[in-house]
Amino acid sequence: MSPLELDRNESWLSREELDAARERLPILYVDAVPVRVDDRGVLTAVGLLLRASDGEINRELVSGRVLYHERVRDALVRHLEKDLGPMALPQIPASPQPFTVAEYFPTPGVTPFHDPRQHAVSLAFVVPVAGDCQPQQDALDLAWLTPQEAMDPALLADMDNGHGVLLRQALGHLGHAV
Amino acid sequence: MSPLELDRNESWLSREELDAARERLPILYVDAVPVRVDDRGVLTAVGLLLRASDGEINRELVSGRVLYHERVRDALVRHLEKDLGPMALPQIPASPQPFTVAEYFPTPGVTPFHDPRQHAVSLAFVVPVAGDCQPQQDALDLAWLTPQEAMDPALLADMDNGHGVLLRQALGHLGHAV
Amino acid sequence: MSPLELDRNESWLSREELDAARERLPILYVDAVPVRVDDRGVLTAVGLLLRASDGEINRELVSGRVLYHERVRDALVRHLEKDLGPMALPQIPASPQPFTVAEYFPTPGVTPFHDPRQHAVSLAFVVPVAGDCQPQQDALDLAWLTPQEAMDPALLADMDNGHGVLLRQALGHLGHAV
Amino acid sequence: MSPLELDRNESWLSREELDAARERLPILYVDAVPVRVDDRGVLTAVGLLLRASDGEINRELVSGRVLYHERVRDALVRHLEKDLGPMALPQIPASPQPFTVAEYFPTPGVTPFHDPRQHAVSLAFVVPVAGDCQPQQDALDLAWLTPQEAMDPALLADMDNGHGVLLRQALGHLGHAV
Repeated sequence: MSPLELDRNESWLSREELDAARERLPILYVDAVPVRVDDRGVLTAVGLLLRASDGEINRELVSGRVLYHERVRDALVRHLEKDLGPMALPQIPASPQPFTVAEYFPTPGVTPFHDPRQHAVSLAFVVPVAGDCQPQQDALDLAWLTPQEAMDPALLADMDNGHGVLLRQALGHLGHAV
Repeated sequence: MSPLELDRNESWLSREELDAARERLPILYVDAVPVRVDDRGVLTAVGLLLRASDGEINRELVSGRVLYHERVRDALVRHLEKDLGPMALPQIPASPQPFTVAEYFPTPGVTPFHDPRQHAVSLAFVVPVAGDCQPQQDALDLAWLTPQEAMDPALLADMDNGHGVLLRQALGHLGHAV
Repeated sequence: MSPLELDRNESWLSREELDAARERLPILYVDAVPVRVDDRGVLTAVGLLLRASDGEINRELVSGRVLYHERVRDALVRHLEKDLGPMALPQIPASPQPFTVAEYFPTPGVTPFHDPRQHAVSLAFVVPVAGDCQPQQDALDLAWLTPQEAMDPALLADMDNGHGVLLRQALGHLGHAV
Repeated sequence: MSPLELDRNESWLSREELDAARERLPILYVDAVPVRVDDRGVLTAVGLLLRASDGEINRELVSGRVLYHERVRDALVRHLEKDLGPMALPQIPASPQPFTVAEYFPTPGVTPFHDPRQHAVSLAFVVPVAGDCQPQQDALDLAWLTPQEAMDPALLADMDNGHGVLLRQALGHLGHAV
């Protein structure tokens, strides 16, 4: 959820209306951890977006809002295609059960997750992608890290808004040592 | 989510503002299935609220909105206390992972869940309650059903808005035959 | 877990040794519910094996033992390939968390699951299969049922050993009404 | 799973028979992470056993074998009472779904989990305990750590057999930063 996301979001609301809602209601999000797996389901790589924001390069997970009358799985497809391109072939989970729910508060410290713009509640999923990924829009690049690289404490600490925490939780959910 | 819930909800929004948001954004809910368990965690009873609505008696799960800047677990406590009374002693799950996510659409048939008022996305939890339950407010009574009684297809089909489906999913999650 | 499974199992134990262990220890199994999903992860079909056993045709899930020094995910691949053929292309879950654990007792009625031969504890997974399925060995056929057909109470009640219960739990886990 | 556990296990098998089975079959275990939670389910402390083993003090989770014809939940109760005493009042999870499955291999490096004695497959649960804990038998003490203390990398790295990895995964499952 970069500061630029507002501009990326196709929305049924005007910018003013969304800003107003953001001060009044928790906003529903999805977070996706794109992964490569082998034919036995073993994690081989984790995909992180490189995004320019305020003159810095941030590593981020795929993240975005669920729209009115949109199913959670359709929001996952939409945000994955938006960030990874139309040929990524994401394998959307068949079950609606997320591996965790991340609560992003505008006030830092309430949870490990923070979003200065809003109170967002995000359903988090691990999503294997089988196809070719072409970063789109404001994503500069997509970096595929080995599980070992993804567990680097320096990298995880460097990810904004709690995405490092979410990535650790995803790796733990996949049985990795973190 | 009875038609009366709007009146029960303490909200940071005026009724008009909430009505407007409901036409524009998915609204975040929690659903709780209150259960009694023995000291080995075995399900012994399922709690269903009896509510009067439009001249009918409905059986319902505990359900309600998550407010701005409220944690999901605090919303669970608030709605359980509102419906079961202050002495229910709910054992709120330590993990934020719901057993399922129920997507209530204003249009029937998109999912098994339906809410004519809004697009609500609900995090569903099974919550053991250890104390005395005293139905509050517009709940007429709380009925404790054996797992066998709770699996009665006629009862499940009779629950509105998909709460029968959610109860079945909860029973399956607990290892019961349904 | 058909009565013929002993013959199908490549095992590090002699038949006599396995029989002895079965009277002394819980035996670790995996159960897999093969499914077809669309590109948004929506369930479109459930695969059931038709097996001849004692002159009857049974519908079964994919099921089998985990061997010594075998990973759970490798046992899943092995049993899926054994029953669905080498071109089934199963998408083995990246996470080791099963959607449920089925405890098959030799004594009926302890749990909904029953196995007259042994005390088996089975890790149950939903496994999307993307390729061509060719039933192998003693499986007569593989039937792809729509979710609606798979929820038929008569079909579910007819499945032996509690596989009908497990299929219901899988469908509930996938968000279906059952 | 300390080297002393064999002596602690009441078993239907003789020591020789169990040793033989351990060379031939995966052995089913349960692992429990004892926790204290507040009345909103928030983690306040993690319980670690201090055990003397080969002249060293090890910190361990509660862990032990599932016996023939024993339910998983009964094995959890038995091992928790054995290690924490009869007044611990563990709240055994109502659902059989573990938060992860830990595969302990006799060969190091196959998974993050290692057990030189056997191939053990363990269903892992977080278990809130509400009562008084009195370490029993060869457990010297039970230490209650704050979540912050439990996330100390030095402590986690020091736990044998992969219990540090399992504790990290449990903390991640509970929404903590790890």
